[in-house]
Amino acid sequence: MEFAAYVNGEKAGILAEEFDLSAANVMAVEPLPPVVTADDAVGSKDGKKQNGRKIVLGRNVHTECFEVTEPDANDDFTGDKEAYMGSVLARYRQILMERTMHQIGYPYNLDFDYGALAQFQHFSINNLGDPFIESGYGVHSRQFEIGVLDWFARLWEIEKNEYWGYVTNCGTEGNLHGILLGREAFPDGILYASRESHYSVYKAARMYRMECVKIDCLISGEIDCADFKVKLLANKDKPAIINVNLGTTVKGAVDDLDLVIRTLEESGFTHDRFYIHCDGASFGLCLPFVKRAPKITFKKPIGSVSVSGHKFVGSPMPCGVQITRMKHINALSRNVEYLASKDATIMGSRNGHASIFLWYTLNRKGYKGFQKEVQKCLRNAHYLKDGLRDAGISAMLNELSCTVVFERPRDEEFVRRWQLICEGNIAHAVAMPNITVEKLDDFLNELIEKRSTWYLDGQFPCIAADVGNENCVCALHK
Amino acid sequence: MEFAAYVNGEKAGILAEEFDLSAANVMAVEPLPPVVTADDAVGSKDGKKQNGRKIVLGRNVHTECFEVTEPDANDDFTGDKEAYMGSVLARYRQILMERTMHQIGYPYNLDFDYGALAQFQHFSINNLGDPFIESGYGVHSRQFEIGVLDWFARLWEIEKNEYWGYVTNCGTEGNLHGILLGREAFPDGILYASRESHYSVYKAARMYRMECVKIDCLISGEIDCADFKVKLLANKDKPAIINVNLGTTVKGAVDDLDLVIRTLEESGFTHDRFYIHCDGASFGLCLPFVKRAPKITFKKPIGSVSVSGHKFVGSPMPCGVQITRMKHINALSRNVEYLASKDATIMGSRNGHASIFLWYTLNRKGYKGFQKEVQKCLRNAHYLKDGLRDAGISAMLNELSCTVVFERPRDEEFVRRWQLICEGNIAHAVAMPNITVEKLDDFLNELIEKRSTWYLDGQFPCIAADVGNENCVCALHK
Repeated sequence: MEFAAYVNGEKAGILAEEFDLSAANVMAVEPLPPVVTADDAVGSKDGKKQNGRKIVLGRNVHTECFEVTEPDANDDFTGDKEAYMGSVLARYRQILMERTMHQIGYPYNLDFDYGALAQFQHFSINNLGDPFIESGYGVHSRQFEIGVLDWFARLWEIEKNEYWGYVTNCGTEGNLHGILLGREAFPDGILYASRESHYSVYKAARMYRMECVKIDCLISGEIDCADFKVKLLANKDKPAIINVNLGTTVKGAVDDLDLVIRTLEESGFTHDRFYIHCDGASFGLCLPFVKRAPKITFKKPIGSVSVSGHKFVGSPMPCGVQITRMKHINALSRNVEYLASKDATIMGSRNGHASIFLWYTLNRKGYKGFQKEVQKCLRNAHYLKDGLRDAGISAMLNELSCTVVFERPRDEEFVRRWQLICEGNIAHAVAMPNITVEKLDDFLNELIEKRSTWYLDGQFPCIAADVGNENCVCALHK
Repeated sequence: MEFAAYVNGEKAGILAEEFDLSAANVMAVEPLPPVVTADDAVGSKDGKKQNGRKIVLGRNVHTECFEVTEPDANDDFTGDKEAYMGSVLARYRQILMERTMHQIGYPYNLDFDYGALAQFQHFSINNLGDPFIESGYGVHSRQFEIGVLDWFARLWEIEKNEYWGYVTNCGTEGNLHGILLGREAFPDGILYASRESHYSVYKAARMYRMECVKIDCLISGEIDCADFKVKLLANKDKPAIINVNLGTTVKGAVDDLDLVIRTLEESGFTHDRFYIHCDGASFGLCLPFVKRAPKITFKKPIGSVSVSGHKFVGSPMPCGVQITRMKHINALSRNVEYLASKDATIMGSRNGHASIFLWYTLNRKGYKGFQKEVQKCLRNAHYLKDGLRDAGISAMLNELSCTVVFERPRDEEFVRRWQLICEGNIAHAVAMPNITVEKLDDFLNELIEKRSTWYLDGQFPCIAADVGNENCVCALHK
C-alpha cells in the first residue's frame, strides 16, 4: 500500500483516524526500500564491486508524496485546508518520533533541545558570503558564527589572525571547499583519496576536473600508506592533494595523519608541494578527546579540516564547520578577483540558524562536556561490540571509533527499522551521545531474537574479508 | 566602540540594561561597514570597474563576536552561564527585529509565520541525496519535498515522469547544479553569461574549469543578444551552455528567453548543441504571474530552472528549488557511476525543514495567492518609482520587475540602515510582499529629508550611464 493513499486530499478522512504508533503499523504503510545500499556511506574497498553496484537511473518515484493542493475559494470559511494540513503535520510528527527512536545506523546525535532558540524561527537569518566581511544584509548571525569558528580554531591550534573558515551546510560542503583550496594551490595537483573516503571526495574530483588516484585501505578501513607511497612515487612530478579521513563512513577508521605526512616526506614531497584536507565529518570533533588518537593540529602541515555539525553536536538540520589557513583563502580570493566576488564560500547564501545552534551547544557543553560525551560513546561502542561477540555475531570496533561493524542482518525490514547503513556483507551501528545502554540492549535483544530464525541451518556468514579473521566468529574463524 | 565589548562574559552586566531600540542606538553600537559593496549582487556591466572593485584580502576581523566560553564547574549552581546566554539571545532578538523592520534592499520576503512548524525543530531532518531514491535514514521529509517539486513542475509545464529536481540550499546551489548538468551534457561546451549575471555563475565556471564568455547587457540589464550572436558565431565549433537570468541581481532585468533561443538557432546551434539554465533565483517564481512576461516552460528547449525559496516565498533559512529534465540527470548519474554515488545533488546532506517550510507556504497561498502577491508587489514597485521621480530622484523600473533602481544615497549610514544593495552610482530597493505602502512612505520620506542636506550646491548626480537618459532627472537630462 502506498503512503500517498493516506495523504492526498481525497482520503483526508483516514488521516483523522487514531494513529497506531506500533512499529508494525509504520512498517506496513511505508514501502520497503527498493535498493538497500549505504546512503551516506558509499566508499568501498572493492573497486569491482563499486562498478557493479546498482545505480538507479531514471528513477522518479512518487510513491510517498504530500501533495500541494490549490486552496479552494471557501477554504477560509470551511477550514478544510487547515484541517488537511494539520492532520498531515500531526501524522508526520508521529513518524518522526518513531523514526528518531529507532535510529542507530547514522552518526547523528538526535538528542538536543533548542527550545530557547525557537524565537528565531520568525527571522530570515542569512550569513551571506564571507563571515569576516561585513554584509549589507543586517539579518545575520555572524557574531555567533565567528564565536563558533574561534572555538574550533582553538581546538585545532591555529591563531585567530591566521585562520579563515565558515559554517557550512554539511560535511560535503567542507570537502568540496577543502579540495577546491587544494586545487587552487596546486592547479595540476593529483587528488589522492583512500577507497573508503566519502563519495563527496570523488564527486569533487569530477566537478573540479582533477586527476584522482585511489589508494587501498587496510582491513581496518585506514588508508594503506604502503600503497600510497607506491602511487606517490609513480607521480612524483605533480603536487599532491590528499584527503585524510578522520573517521571513514563505513568502518569509522581514522587515517594516521602523521604516517601520511611521513609518507609524503619520504617520497620526496616537500611541504610546499602538497595540500592535506582532513575530512572530519564523522569523527573530527571527537578525535581531540580520544587518548592515543593522532593529534589534529594546524601546527602540522595540513591545509584544512572540516566537521559536520549535525553529527556529534546534533542540530535540526545538516551543517558543518570548515577551517583553513588564511593564506589559502587569500590565494583563492585572488583567483576569483576577476569574478568581482569577495565570497570565498561555496554556497553564498548560508543558513544563519545553524551558527546559533552550534554556538548554543558549544557554550553549554564546552570542551569538557564533549570529552565526557566522547568517553561515554566509546564505552557504549565497546559495550555493543562485546554484546554482539557474546552472542556469537562477528563484529569489529576500531580503537579510535564509536562505529561498530558487524554481520549484515539478513532481514531488510530489520535493517530498515534500525536505519542501519549496510555495504556488502557488513552493517554498522554508531554509538552517538543519544544512544543509551538501554537502547543498545533493545537493539541487541531484537537482533539476537530475529537472527535465531535466520540461520536455521546453523551456517552463520563469514565476514573475515571485511573485518579480518580476528573479528570474525564464523565456523571457520571462531 | 566594538560590539563585542557588550557581549563577552566580563561585561555581561551591561547586557542586562534596558535595551533602547531606537535606530540611533543600534547604529552606535554596531561598527559601520568598512567596505560597502553589493553582497548578493556583484554582476556589473563594466568589466574594468569589476577588476577595480575592492576585494578584501586577509581580512579576518573579530570585531563582532559572541564568544563561546568554557562552562565553569559551578555554572549549574550559579546560573551565570544561563544568564549570559539568555541575555545575549534576548539582545540579539532585538537586533533581528530592528534589522528586519528596515530591510528594503535584499529581495527577501521577511513576512512569514511558521509557528505551526516549530514542533519539528526537535528533529534532525535530513533529506540525504536524491529525493526520489529511498534513504536508509528515516528522519527525512521527502514526502514534502516531492510535493513541492511537483508543484514547480506543474508551474513550468513538465510531466511528473519527465522531470527531476531537489530542494537546494539556495540559488547558488541551483546555479552550480544547472551549470554542472550543462557541462556534463557538453564537456567542451562554452558557458555564456551576461555581465549582470549573479557571481555564482562565474564561480561555477571557475570551479568546473569551463571556458566562459561574458555577454554585454542592455541598459535595462537584459542580455544583449546582438553581442551574444557575435560571440556565438566566433565559437561555432563548440556547444553552448547559456545562463539566462530571470531577474538580475542589481536591476531585476529578465532576459528574453525566446530571443536567446532564436539567437542560438539563427547562429546555427541546433537544439542538440546547447543547454540553457534559467537562473530564477530572484524573480523566477514571480514571472509566471506577470502579464507580458516571457513564458518559462519546459516545452521550450531549456535544460533547468532554479529559484530561491527564501526570497519571494520567504523562509527562516536560505533554500531553493532546482528542476531539470530526467534525461540530464540520467546523463549525470551515468557519469558519476564509477564514483559509486547514486546522489546527483551537489550537497548530499540536505536540510529537510526547508521542504516543509516551502510545502506549508505553497499549500496556503497556492498559485492564486502568489498571483495576488506578485500584482501587489508590481504595484508597490511602481509606487516607489513614481515617488522617487516626483521627488526629483532618478529612478528606473524594468517592466517585469519589482526592483527599483535609483541614485545611490550619499550617506553610507542611510544605505546601511535600509540595507540597500549598491553598485557604483546606483542602489536598489525591492518591493517584496512584506514591503507595505507605509514602509515605502517611511523610506521615501527619510530619503527625501536626508537628501535635502546632501546636495547643498544643487548638483544632483547623473546616473544616465546606468539607467539611461530617460530615467535620469539630473540637470542635464530632466
